[in-house]
Amino acid sequence: MELFENIRFVNIIEFLGTCAFAMSGIRLASAKKFDFFGAFVIGLVTAIGGGTTRDLLIGATPFWIQTPVYLIATFIALLIVAVFHKQLVKLNNTFFIWDCIGLGLFVVVGVEKTLAFGFQPWVAITMGVITGSVGGMLRDVLINEIPLVFRKEIYALACVIGGVVFTILYALQVNPIVNQVITASVVILIRILAVKFQWHLPVLKGENQ
Amino acid sequence: MELFENIRFVNIIEFLGTCAFAMSGIRLASAKKFDFFGAFVIGLVTAIGGGTTRDLLIGATPFWIQTPVYLIATFIALLIVAVFHKQLVKLNNTFFIWDCIGLGLFVVVGVEKTLAFGFQPWVAITMGVITGSVGGMLRDVLINEIPLVFRKEIYALACVIGGVVFTILYALQVNPIVNQVITASVVILIRILAVKFQWHLPVLKGENQ
Amino acid sequence: MELFENIRFVNIIEFLGTCAFAMSGIRLASAKKFDFFGAFVIGLVTAIGGGTTRDLLIGATPFWIQTPVYLIATFIALLIVAVFHKQLVKLNNTFFIWDCIGLGLFVVVGVEKTLAFGFQPWVAITMGVITGSVGGMLRDVLINEIPLVFRKEIYALACVIGGVVFTILYALQVNPIVNQVITASVVILIRILAVKFQWHLPVLKGENQ
Repeated sequence: MELFENIRFVNIIEFLGTCAFAMSGIRLASAKKFDFFGAFVIGLVTAIGGGTTRDLLIGATPFWIQTPVYLIATFIALLIVAVFHKQLVKLNNTFFIWDCIGLGLFVVVGVEKTLAFGFQPWVAITMGVITGSVGGMLRDVLINEIPLVFRKEIYALACVIGGVVFTILYALQVNPIVNQVITASVVILIRILAVKFQWHLPVLKGENQ
Repeated sequence: MELFENIRFVNIIEFLGTCAFAMSGIRLASAKKFDFFGAFVIGLVTAIGGGTTRDLLIGATPFWIQTPVYLIATFIALLIVAVFHKQLVKLNNTFFIWDCIGLGLFVVVGVEKTLAFGFQPWVAITMGVITGSVGGMLRDVLINEIPLVFRKEIYALACVIGGVVFTILYALQVNPIVNQVITASVVILIRILAVKFQWHLPVLKGENQ
Repeated sequence: MELFENIRFVNIIEFLGTCAFAMSGIRLASAKKFDFFGAFVIGLVTAIGGGTTRDLLIGATPFWIQTPVYLIATFIALLIVAVFHKQLVKLNNTFFIWDCIGLGLFVVVGVEKTLAFGFQPWVAITMGVITGSVGGMLRDVLINEIPLVFRKEIYALACVIGGVVFTILYALQVNPIVNQVITASVVILIRILAVKFQWHLPVLKGENQ
């Protein structure tokens, strides 16, 4: 039962956020007719790819090696998709909310961990963006699509703004928990508004346009 | 002649397994009209990509940096494909056997090294799967195809089962060499049977199916 | 103003080389209708992907985490493409020269840093090639194309030859700055000649050809 010791509210949020990220990968994999194992791998890469890239870059042991909880969350996401696949479309709004919450949390974790390792604010903000968006990027590379994050409603910009908010409140020595809640809320709100009002960054005009 | 000191049976097996993995990449690259250098890179990535990913994740120096033998094995694989390209198809069964032996060995090396670094069994099993399958995954991403491992005869499951067998025998303190031989044999056998009888994992049914 | 302390000639060259690499990524991204953020990411990956891969493999802290100058160079590259997009085609020759100079410099930095970390010459040469070519490889994977480096005018071979030249002069204890200039010149010259005379490595003939 060691797994269930010291579980706090933030762990439950993280578990649900991981599930939501994994599920987005698994549903895309199932649309491409992957087998169960392939879908599991895509789900896992979506959920842990960003944090793993961050940890390799800042010289930390990859977070998911320290507890099996992320593999378990991915496995549960796989079961949910396998069992409820016909009902999932109706739950799209629920998944979207959890996906946003996961994003907010991933950004907070990424920025906070990088600052704790002693890196400068601009590195921390960059790592927040990497934590939030590289998983989806790797997912899209593995299913052989152009990464959605490069063209989607200001997904990455939400991570940048969240990172800036966190580092400012951190410099002002705001209570860490207050900072986490404010930063995550900012990321979640921007993401929800961006999708609702279809905010996009302008496309970069090239020489042939 | 330092290279040829202390060569043991397992080194010869590893050399041939590396050649077999490299050759699978080089043959696919030649089908895509890559030049010699591109084919060499694809062969190398196929052969060392899995072990390199494992080493980065567990914090080890990448294994192929410590001896040039893996680059040499890839170079020999390139020469064989370049010289014997018309005869290669007839040897498909031979290559397949060596590919299976390579897979068995890669899984053993991946699990054993991770346990030696002090990680828990589930991490070791995960690293065994990564060692055996990430090279082929990177190969397919670089030639712009959806990774075969996500849809092929239970390739990755053979790695999982091999990893479980090794960690159980390891916990029972079975002699390491006996453990290596048993685990590799299990992986090789499952892989051969899977291809012979076309065993597949079920495709994950998505919302549109 | 800390950023602008101790700026030497080599820093200016490195800045312009980074801009040139980033610009090659950004222009390809704009052709694929990426938004500003996506184009920035592609530019950054092109410019720092090779050096980051090298640093992870040799166990160094990624170079671009230590100073924001590489992110700034990428940002300037983005501004240039955004503002001057209609005039850029006329400047293709200028960009090409800077791209070659960047390549020469990246190879020198990659080989020298790896030797300084105490690795053997063949590892240093390999890391020189990785520093010069992996950024472009990652760029092409992210925009969902087969990496150009596998089929282009002896791009990677120029890196290999540069690496060999550097390690020989290094072993002969030639003055480091002389060595840097000679090696970079060799890489730049080979690359320019290869494009001018359309030198290609032969395509590897496969079993179906």
